[in-house]
Amino acid sequence: MRFLTAGESHGKGLVGIIDDYPSGVLIDIDFLNHELSRRQKGFGRGNRMSIEKDEVEIISGIRKGKSIGSPISFIIKNKDWNNWKEVMNINPPGSKDIDLEKKLLNPRPGHADLSGFLKYRLDDIRDVIERSSARETTVRVGIGGFAKIVLKLLGINVFSYVSQIGKAVFSKDIRINNDILKEIDKSEVRCPDRTISLQMKEEIIKAERNGDSVGGKFKVIATGVPPGLGSYSQWDRRIDGKIAGSFMSIPAIKAVEIGDGFNVTGKTGTLFHDEIYYRSGDGFYRKTNRAGGIEGGMTNGEPVIVGASMKPIPTTAKGLHTVNIKTKEIEISLKERSDICAVPSASIVGEAILSMEILNSIQEKFGKDNIDEILENYNNYKRYLEKV
Amino acid sequence: MRFLTAGESHGKGLVGIIDDYPSGVLIDIDFLNHELSRRQKGFGRGNRMSIEKDEVEIISGIRKGKSIGSPISFIIKNKDWNNWKEVMNINPPGSKDIDLEKKLLNPRPGHADLSGFLKYRLDDIRDVIERSSARETTVRVGIGGFAKIVLKLLGINVFSYVSQIGKAVFSKDIRINNDILKEIDKSEVRCPDRTISLQMKEEIIKAERNGDSVGGKFKVIATGVPPGLGSYSQWDRRIDGKIAGSFMSIPAIKAVEIGDGFNVTGKTGTLFHDEIYYRSGDGFYRKTNRAGGIEGGMTNGEPVIVGASMKPIPTTAKGLHTVNIKTKEIEISLKERSDICAVPSASIVGEAILSMEILNSIQEKFGKDNIDEILENYNNYKRYLEKV
Amino acid sequence: MRFLTAGESHGKGLVGIIDDYPSGVLIDIDFLNHELSRRQKGFGRGNRMSIEKDEVEIISGIRKGKSIGSPISFIIKNKDWNNWKEVMNINPPGSKDIDLEKKLLNPRPGHADLSGFLKYRLDDIRDVIERSSARETTVRVGIGGFAKIVLKLLGINVFSYVSQIGKAVFSKDIRINNDILKEIDKSEVRCPDRTISLQMKEEIIKAERNGDSVGGKFKVIATGVPPGLGSYSQWDRRIDGKIAGSFMSIPAIKAVEIGDGFNVTGKTGTLFHDEIYYRSGDGFYRKTNRAGGIEGGMTNGEPVIVGASMKPIPTTAKGLHTVNIKTKEIEISLKERSDICAVPSASIVGEAILSMEILNSIQEKFGKDNIDEILENYNNYKRYLEKV
Amino acid sequence: MRFLTAGESHGKGLVGIIDDYPSGVLIDIDFLNHELSRRQKGFGRGNRMSIEKDEVEIISGIRKGKSIGSPISFIIKNKDWNNWKEVMNINPPGSKDIDLEKKLLNPRPGHADLSGFLKYRLDDIRDVIERSSARETTVRVGIGGFAKIVLKLLGINVFSYVSQIGKAVFSKDIRINNDILKEIDKSEVRCPDRTISLQMKEEIIKAERNGDSVGGKFKVIATGVPPGLGSYSQWDRRIDGKIAGSFMSIPAIKAVEIGDGFNVTGKTGTLFHDEIYYRSGDGFYRKTNRAGGIEGGMTNGEPVIVGASMKPIPTTAKGLHTVNIKTKEIEISLKERSDICAVPSASIVGEAILSMEILNSIQEKFGKDNIDEILENYNNYKRYLEKV
Repeated sequence: MRFLTAGESHGKGLVGIIDDYPSGVLIDIDFLNHELSRRQKGFGRGNRMSIEKDEVEIISGIRKGKSIGSPISFIIKNKDWNNWKEVMNINPPGSKDIDLEKKLLNPRPGHADLSGFLKYRLDDIRDVIERSSARETTVRVGIGGFAKIVLKLLGINVFSYVSQIGKAVFSKDIRINNDILKEIDKSEVRCPDRTISLQMKEEIIKAERNGDSVGGKFKVIATGVPPGLGSYSQWDRRIDGKIAGSFMSIPAIKAVEIGDGFNVTGKTGTLFHDEIYYRSGDGFYRKTNRAGGIEGGMTNGEPVIVGASMKPIPTTAKGLHTVNIKTKEIEISLKERSDICAVPSASIVGEAILSMEILNSIQEKFGKDNIDEILENYNNYKRYLEKV
Repeated sequence: MRFLTAGESHGKGLVGIIDDYPSGVLIDIDFLNHELSRRQKGFGRGNRMSIEKDEVEIISGIRKGKSIGSPISFIIKNKDWNNWKEVMNINPPGSKDIDLEKKLLNPRPGHADLSGFLKYRLDDIRDVIERSSARETTVRVGIGGFAKIVLKLLGINVFSYVSQIGKAVFSKDIRINNDILKEIDKSEVRCPDRTISLQMKEEIIKAERNGDSVGGKFKVIATGVPPGLGSYSQWDRRIDGKIAGSFMSIPAIKAVEIGDGFNVTGKTGTLFHDEIYYRSGDGFYRKTNRAGGIEGGMTNGEPVIVGASMKPIPTTAKGLHTVNIKTKEIEISLKERSDICAVPSASIVGEAILSMEILNSIQEKFGKDNIDEILENYNNYKRYLEKV
Repeated sequence: MRFLTAGESHGKGLVGIIDDYPSGVLIDIDFLNHELSRRQKGFGRGNRMSIEKDEVEIISGIRKGKSIGSPISFIIKNKDWNNWKEVMNINPPGSKDIDLEKKLLNPRPGHADLSGFLKYRLDDIRDVIERSSARETTVRVGIGGFAKIVLKLLGINVFSYVSQIGKAVFSKDIRINNDILKEIDKSEVRCPDRTISLQMKEEIIKAERNGDSVGGKFKVIATGVPPGLGSYSQWDRRIDGKIAGSFMSIPAIKAVEIGDGFNVTGKTGTLFHDEIYYRSGDGFYRKTNRAGGIEGGMTNGEPVIVGASMKPIPTTAKGLHTVNIKTKEIEISLKERSDICAVPSASIVGEAILSMEILNSIQEKFGKDNIDEILENYNNYKRYLEKV
Repeated sequence: MRFLTAGESHGKGLVGIIDDYPSGVLIDIDFLNHELSRRQKGFGRGNRMSIEKDEVEIISGIRKGKSIGSPISFIIKNKDWNNWKEVMNINPPGSKDIDLEKKLLNPRPGHADLSGFLKYRLDDIRDVIERSSARETTVRVGIGGFAKIVLKLLGINVFSYVSQIGKAVFSKDIRINNDILKEIDKSEVRCPDRTISLQMKEEIIKAERNGDSVGGKFKVIATGVPPGLGSYSQWDRRIDGKIAGSFMSIPAIKAVEIGDGFNVTGKTGTLFHDEIYYRSGDGFYRKTNRAGGIEGGMTNGEPVIVGASMKPIPTTAKGLHTVNIKTKEIEISLKERSDICAVPSASIVGEAILSMEILNSIQEKFGKDNIDEILENYNNYKRYLEKV
């Protein structure tokens, strides 16, 4: 499974093409739209999300409810486009619907604005921010939804929760279960603990009051992952490397950990590592999971746990010191409509990312053409594991 | 520039092939060997490093001192191989030099041992550990050395230091200069502060005394990097994603940060982001660098700063609880000769990794065939930046 | 520049995403649509082409007439979809607009039908033929159009003509000029010679009369290509390999040649190879071009000439012997509406393919971010060539 | 399975790294060396081949006779290097073993010489020809040998024969069997027909007498290939495209066909395509194979047949008109020691290429970690095919 995304934040829409998705998979469009809506929620989002109600429009790859082995393509329309048709006009000025908008020339610190303007030799920062916007992650959540559908058929489930917003920290080790999932869903900040959820909301409210923004951390967990995905054999086939690369590609993510990665010094070696046990029926298992389910660049059969740090949203009401790119005069950074905190949304993007990476590794090991074939090969492997 | 590495820890040697390295680059073999020796040093390394004195033997790609545009290949021989010829024999048993060694069957927690054994359906853990060994990074340091040589010609320099071992932390923000580099080089643990260096050594000594091991953190910094490497345009072209993926592929690395990534909640948005300034002659610049030189998936002209967390070495004198893969009986994990702490060495590997990723992005933007051509195109870009 | 395509032949539409297209390029949508219309023409096409009038609908990547460095995505709607909504319904049967169509079970020899059905474990050949249809090449012509726009700015032009249909052969060596281009455009079979054009039409008419189809050959030529694109250095970087791979991926193409490749035995070595000359002002040049502009896996400065052989269209009115996949009973292959001869259309696809491959190699050597930057780097190289 | 090759024609040796080769495969080094020796033979080769006796020296990836899942690396030493140590010295001039050789400045038409010199901004054509030499294919034959070993375990066998040298043509359709294989092996030009073999030798002798060289054609055939390798789904996943790309990357190959690709106009559609039949036990089959075992970008279960055209060797005793790159004066091209005809050798390279491409597609569909796992998944598929 590989994919490309396209689309500007205020253009006609966002487009995704997924190549090499298995045939024979029943596609639940409602599930995909539900995934999109989960990304749109969360305390701290700006008012853009009240305009948009993201929905997948399938263009190809699905017939009579099932994937058929050809590339899946879809569009998610930007409802807001109607208000931006002039600004985002694809036709050259001089055509009758000419755009009279003033160019944006004061780059926002923390964003792609300045470097993107220089890299692509543009003359309007609008050309950068339309694509560098985190709205692009909408498509990835859609694609991740497709991945999740396959993973579920293999007994692999992917969850997430927010572990920190500002100074409010949820640091307990949890085993995901239905009760906890319900708590996370109920929480406006996707935190499993009610008291800490309130503290997190307080952090967001406080930031908003100050014309400011606030960052945080989240965890994504995949259960039911078999051992042996990824490889130590060549540097670029380690699954932790792939996962870290994909997570860091989520806008505003500045750090990624596997397991207890942020806290490697909390324990010495004999206490850090997850000792190996065996129980007839269950096979090899661990009592702890500080490795986050990955050892030697491979999954080890325990839940895969990925943590990520998200910087505070760079666009703030208060603004930041910047310089007009053309005049070089000091200005305050522009206030593109924005969120105060998007960590809960980012955790949903993280689910999509982890789902895609795990499906990729599944397809590498068990084939990718058809879901029944994948399941047969997967079960082959499981039978082999039982006999070791 | 792309590359593959090969080689077992106690086999004949390690092999690297670098493809698409520019022609016309004067290759200083002594520099490459010096880089290799920097990886071998560091307080806390085991006695293997006293056996090996790694040296690059060039097989191809260089003629009369210069790269010629064809693939560079090299071997780094394992001196220790002489002691392992029987165990590592490539011929099948039954030939006269048959291997009588007992198979390894008790997987070490924290290593690739168990998952690798299952994934590749092996019958001897030795087959895993020979390749999953961090000795593989030797080749990457060699390849990184080739990258560094080109980067220097472009005015880009890459450094590293150790910021934490166990509980001993060096947390000051530093601007790299010659004095600091000398301090780092003098320190047996590659830390810029003498007092903290001693504390770090204490942590290692304490761990060794307890039959234990200890993890830590390090930073890698690249200066002189132009703005606009990487791109926000497509998810997999963000340079922070590429860097994070490559760093996480270093054995034992469990977390990666760009800039202040581990501490995103230390400041709210208006205080976190690096405000933009302009000074005639210097162009755009920042007074702070919490972004670690990367915004919107692109370099922004400030030094690129990458931090990484390394877990404690899993092999310890004390051993860990494990299970014999065949008999399922409880055992203590095997004590393959090992280090107590390899964070200083890992920081050198980090330099190689960052050098390679930056050179890759340079070659994407400025071409890759010949060093003079790259320099011309690079200078074009710099002239353009001055005129913006 | 990389791309993915999606879309079924009778689905909603065809989708393309182009990644890494340079910014700052003025996009002439009319030109793109003109390219699409060129593919739709040609004596011998079936009546589908009278239903469709292919037009690019840009979704992203272009603003105010210019590419902005973000991914370009577009849709080409299938007008015929209106007649196929039931058959191509994406919803599962059981929803109210249930599909009552009978399944296709008799695979057509020469098509993907049988292997695709087996590979993807489908239960309706319709699922295969919708994607394996050559209608997919419409998107590639669109993408090739984008490539052509950039190439023109670099002085590189790409042309094609049909050299054979059935027994009618045009074998003269031609130097492309405006007169010849006009002849090709006037010819209903895209052949530069009027008499042979009539013979080619006769071949098609004869085939149609017999309920049959007919194959042929075409040539694609790129002028203005600089020397040194591609490389002999690594097996998969040879530009002839890349071109051959892309051409063979055009449906129904069964052979590809560079220069006089189909006739390598026509001359011995001393007569085959293109001797090297030099003229002040022009630099190095050749008086012949049997190499088709490629030596040692690289362009040599002469026009790049690629020939391709297209098998007869497998779908014929007469039908072919086949077997019902389920019942195993003998049947005659189904008669999906089809062309008698599509060689003229394939030559337009060939132009797109060659344009994309050359642009890719240009971007590798001269950068890819912005058209002005590419031009500067390209001119650097040209100046260097003059000084050699 | 992916790989990189390195090495100059007269350097220390040639290096190959194979990544992602399955574990558990018994590696017969003698078989690999036998493959290398097959490439060295053939009437028409120059005297270099009497100096070299190519042998694989395994550096990594094999232990106790079997692949272990880690990258396989090997060296093939150039025995001739002893005579070239000065010319190929990797050290800069100025060191004591300084190279006094005159630089090569007269590029040979038909070779990489001129374009390579310009592309890489070199000052000695020697730097080009050492890598652009077809000696590089030695490594690919070695790698292909590894692929063949796996394919045999799956019941897939790869053969080749020479079908034309100069005017001597062998055009019969043959079904490969042991008798024919013996004839091919006995023939000094690898042609299955004794009379035509003599004619082919005559062509070579005649060319040599004239100080000239001669080209030809060959066929490579893979039997036992299952249907469904490759895909019509995305342009770059068609197996015919991949095969054509790889074949065209063999030095001196100027055209590639699948099945009857060079002769697509020999028959109209109803006569060209291979009708589909079914026989209980055998499943679907064809009575003809003009498609060369590939329809719709996928294998169809019939033998895969690839043809290739090789231009005459550009280096000839007689020489060709060229120009001194520096002085621009007219010269006769240099006479690097060379062959008169290398078509028989190229056919062996073709076997390696086809083996690698088929193994790649096998690994994509059936996994790649371990040979027993691949076999299980492969047998799953075969059982499924029987039930369709």
